Amino acid sequence: MAETAEVREKGTISIHTENIFPIIKKFLYSDHEIFLRELVSNAVDATQKLKKLSSIGEFNGDLGELRVEVSFDKDKKTITVSDRGIGMTGDEIKKYINQIAFSGAAEFVEKFKDKGDAKDIIGKFGLGFYSAFMVADKVEIVSRSFKAAENEAARWECDGSTEFELTSTTKKDRGSDVILYINSESEEFLDEWRLKSILEKYCKFLPVEIKFGTKEESVEDGTDEEGKPKFKSVTVDQIINNPAPLWAKSPSELKDEDYLKFYKELYPFSEEPLFWIHLNVDYPFNLTGVLYFPKVKNDFELQRNKIQLYSRQVFITDEVKDVVPDFLMLLHGVLDSPDIPLNVSRSYLQSDANVKKISQHITKKVGDKLQELFKKDRADFEKKWDDINIFVKYGIISDEKFYEKAKDFTLFKNVDKQYFTFEEYKEKVKPNQTDKDGNIIYIYTSDPGKQDSFIQGAKNKAYDVILLDGVLDSHFINTLEQKLEKTQLKRVDSETADKLIDKGEKIESVLSTEEQEQIKGVFEKAINNKNFSVAIEPMSPNDLPVVVTMSEFMRRMKDMAKTGGGGYAFMGAMPDNYNVAINGNHAITQKILKAEGDEAKAKLAKQAYDLALLSQNLLTGADLTNFIKRSVELVS
Amino acid sequence: MAETAEVREKGTISIHTENIFPIIKKFLYSDHEIFLRELVSNAVDATQKLKKLSSIGEFNGDLGELRVEVSFDKDKKTITVSDRGIGMTGDEIKKYINQIAFSGAAEFVEKFKDKGDAKDIIGKFGLGFYSAFMVADKVEIVSRSFKAAENEAARWECDGSTEFELTSTTKKDRGSDVILYINSESEEFLDEWRLKSILEKYCKFLPVEIKFGTKEESVEDGTDEEGKPKFKSVTVDQIINNPAPLWAKSPSELKDEDYLKFYKELYPFSEEPLFWIHLNVDYPFNLTGVLYFPKVKNDFELQRNKIQLYSRQVFITDEVKDVVPDFLMLLHGVLDSPDIPLNVSRSYLQSDANVKKISQHITKKVGDKLQELFKKDRADFEKKWDDINIFVKYGIISDEKFYEKAKDFTLFKNVDKQYFTFEEYKEKVKPNQTDKDGNIIYIYTSDPGKQDSFIQGAKNKAYDVILLDGVLDSHFINTLEQKLEKTQLKRVDSETADKLIDKGEKIESVLSTEEQEQIKGVFEKAINNKNFSVAIEPMSPNDLPVVVTMSEFMRRMKDMAKTGGGGYAFMGAMPDNYNVAINGNHAITQKILKAEGDEAKAKLAKQAYDLALLSQNLLTGADLTNFIKRSVELVS
Repeated sequence: MAETAEVREKGTISIHTENIFPIIKKFLYSDHEIFLRELVSNAVDATQKLKKLSSIGEFNGDLGELRVEVSFDKDKKTITVSDRGIGMTGDEIKKYINQIAFSGAAEFVEKFKDKGDAKDIIGKFGLGFYSAFMVADKVEIVSRSFKAAENEAARWECDGSTEFELTSTTKKDRGSDVILYINSESEEFLDEWRLKSILEKYCKFLPVEIKFGTKEESVEDGTDEEGKPKFKSVTVDQIINNPAPLWAKSPSELKDEDYLKFYKELYPFSEEPLFWIHLNVDYPFNLTGVLYFPKVKNDFELQRNKIQLYSRQVFITDEVKDVVPDFLMLLHGVLDSPDIPLNVSRSYLQSDANVKKISQHITKKVGDKLQELFKKDRADFEKKWDDINIFVKYGIISDEKFYEKAKDFTLFKNVDKQYFTFEEYKEKVKPNQTDKDGNIIYIYTSDPGKQDSFIQGAKNKAYDVILLDGVLDSHFINTLEQKLEKTQLKRVDSETADKLIDKGEKIESVLSTEEQEQIKGVFEKAINNKNFSVAIEPMSPNDLPVVVTMSEFMRRMKDMAKTGGGGYAFMGAMPDNYNVAINGNHAITQKILKAEGDEAKAKLAKQAYDLALLSQNLLTGADLTNFIKRSVELVS
Repeated sequence: MAETAEVREKGTISIHTENIFPIIKKFLYSDHEIFLRELVSNAVDATQKLKKLSSIGEFNGDLGELRVEVSFDKDKKTITVSDRGIGMTGDEIKKYINQIAFSGAAEFVEKFKDKGDAKDIIGKFGLGFYSAFMVADKVEIVSRSFKAAENEAARWECDGSTEFELTSTTKKDRGSDVILYINSESEEFLDEWRLKSILEKYCKFLPVEIKFGTKEESVEDGTDEEGKPKFKSVTVDQIINNPAPLWAKSPSELKDEDYLKFYKELYPFSEEPLFWIHLNVDYPFNLTGVLYFPKVKNDFELQRNKIQLYSRQVFITDEVKDVVPDFLMLLHGVLDSPDIPLNVSRSYLQSDANVKKISQHITKKVGDKLQELFKKDRADFEKKWDDINIFVKYGIISDEKFYEKAKDFTLFKNVDKQYFTFEEYKEKVKPNQTDKDGNIIYIYTSDPGKQDSFIQGAKNKAYDVILLDGVLDSHFINTLEQKLEKTQLKRVDSETADKLIDKGEKIESVLSTEEQEQIKGVFEKAINNKNFSVAIEPMSPNDLPVVVTMSEFMRRMKDMAKTGGGGYAFMGAMPDNYNVAINGNHAITQKILKAEGDEAKAKLAKQAYDLALLSQNLLTGADLTNFIKRSVELVS
């Protein structure tokens, strides 16, 4: 067959409105309540545009009271959003409403971009409006442009199909009324409480006053016969929002009490925050906000999602997981940035360049603030340390850059409640805590209540013991060992006090080799558990007779297995292996050697061993019950 | 001014393609790698359509080998997806590609809906194709329809603007090649490993073979001189997928080993599952899948997100949080349903009617399966109980309907490892554990290791003690008390054994009122802590001399405060209050009364009190160290 002659054709891809319209309506927003945010935002934008025009002399009329009003009629099943902004002529409605995604605001900004700060009036005009059809069968716009002749207005209506109707009409006031005829599945929105709570969620800080109905208020009304003030109840407009929230103001205008007051406004039931950071960036991205460091309670997981994300004062979400670095998710407060993409999924956010920059900026600001607090008032910083150490440690673990800054103000707290920087601590312990290979050994406790007898043992050797008992400290320890040179961290109960730091010294044993073997045998029999390895060690006579330890290495492997660390799962199945050190120089060994009969020897060994288990919290169940019974008999 | 005469105009809302196109490209999918899933799915759909036409006699040609092939050229920077399916004529390209959201598949299904099962060939034709522009500067389609004359084909190309070019061309094979000219930001995709891993993620179970390059394989090649088999290396096509996955087959065709093999295929490193459920629903929604009950380890949180969600064998996500009831999130396996809306956010999913029905269906099936296992082999069910109880309890807590079924097979396990249903347990303990008000008291332990002395105390009174030591058990206990009539649960250490069940009996005290006051004074002085209320109680002389308890009510309030339960936060700040019961009938009280001097009395009281603290795990820190030292002195 002959080759087909070439046919060349060019054309334009078209979008079938009747097919894409349902997609926009259904997928644009997942929460139906968003319709109110979009319509009120549009109304606010229309109002801001008029203010803008007035300020540059393009509108010379009387602005009047520039409020947005939201109302509803339960009988007629309507919700109405009204503004006194620029309004639209019939032609403008055709241009901006009938042609989806025309993005009227972009055009407006383009036109006036050299005449001031246009960023704050970029509306989401276009797609946002159509979210009305998520909840309405029919939508009506009645609008009078600021340019129109008196009373001259346009009415547009559409039933959610792609057909609209445009009519000329009359309207007394300038601006737009958007009237939603609520569909039967959405009647939940025809409710005062519901509408108010949506407005308070999304519109609490919009820059134009939003009126929603009225409320009763008690006001002074002259004085009574005795000269005391009288009160009467009056009906006043209910204003939903605070049009000038703290974060939109300049830090230089604000005092501490303003920040504390705003914190109370955001979190009425929270304790006072420790301190805060006011963010205010213009370039290369726009970001304002205030982040507060709360007093952290023990419950690490519960306080997340306290940061609210706004875009030009419109509430977007309180899930800021990918905007704020994970280690700062426990902060409270407000972020406002038009540069964070909305309505996109998590994995997209993570790779967005602006989001990355914003996240880095927040990290830097937090580091700077902490450094400043440390330098300005060390004593006060130490007082706050118990509350802020979790942020700092999490930051160190997860962010290399943050570590570089934090290493100068991160503190070790020891069991005597003294605080040291990394540098100070190294100087402090180096002389007495360096082992024969030149490694400095930092000794820590993860639970001073349970490890007290070991802490006392370490202190007897003039060792310092630091407190690392937080939920993140096991990770923090691993990070420290990677960062600090020739430094090892050992838990206080990982060895007997003598062996915690191997300085190559040797204590003489008073026992002969034969006696040592005999004692070992007695204990092995009394213990009768092959996971406990018994060894005779020459310790001080004042130390405990028996000490049970688990080596640092073994315990960390076990911990990793527990938290599911890669490849260590097999460790979880292994039995716990402990070392039992018998103090060869303790009086009890002599007593055992001299005791008559195996049973008497075993009983002594068992009691000494049980006491060692007790100090490691290993005496439980029937063993503990029996120990208690035996001890009761000893007393009574 | 005169009222404006009414102008009425009707029209159609239009979508500005040049504005909405970037939105579709950017927002349609958040993960750019999705483009490959979409293009391969389209290719598979085109192949399935041809098979369908062939099966109903509308296509009589030779089907040939119906594979989809994915290839790439690193130098030319192209990725090509080829199929041998129905192909498209130039007119069809104009119709299906140039007109976005035309939804060609819907038309196809409409036409052939009476001729068999059309569901499985509904493509997402239309929007999905345009995801190619997320990664490509230019996209080319070369396609030959199954209806076209030999070699007659069409070429379409578009550079991501709304302009396209359509040309006639030649093509040897039937079907479509889609060629992507990868843009500079997306060159990561021009990588064998990356493409393979995307294909394996999304296309592993697509119903048509997908070829991606070749691989070396060792095959037998005759025998050598000694008669041993020889091997040679050959190059074979690399097929990415298993076109007939287990869940798409009928349960009646499958054996246990098939299910176990498929489990190994999905989770190569996991232990064998306990059992499984094959889901297979046609109406009112379409759902297939296999859910496995894994062996649950202690780490409750770690095994989530193991269920994979497919839509007609295309992988969608492993975040099935809102499709599967929360209490079944620990299950493993596969769900496949074209009725779950894709690419929509969580809150939308939650309110979707199909999703709700699917979730309810899964719950019902799990309940049925557990019931069946229980009825069929009680002993085996008991053996599995330790692994499955967490599912059952979570289900009971969170789902009323599940409780109605589960109440007949949920088991209590007591400390002697015996199992009872709710009904059986009630019958067992009713005679001996009913209090004077007719309430049946169930006694439980949350930690048999730590509460052993209390368990022994309860057993001495012939009470049964159940084991409720799981992470969910505190919630489970609350739910049980709401469900079970006249039943209370009390932790074994919430009272002294005598008082756990108040039967209105009274044990006589051997002490006079005066002696009681004296003993009380001695202990109060020795304890010296106002949060411990001391009372003298007449217990058995064989009970412990001192017992420390925290009331069930107080402990639950404290627990709730810890987990942030609404309104109980203030409890967290309250000190722990304990009751100290002194056994007035124990020998030690006589010893204290007779001891010479306050110091001797105090020492006896202190030791008895310390032992009571020990049995409640309350002796810690310096107190424990001192106790151990004192005890060491007693021994040596």
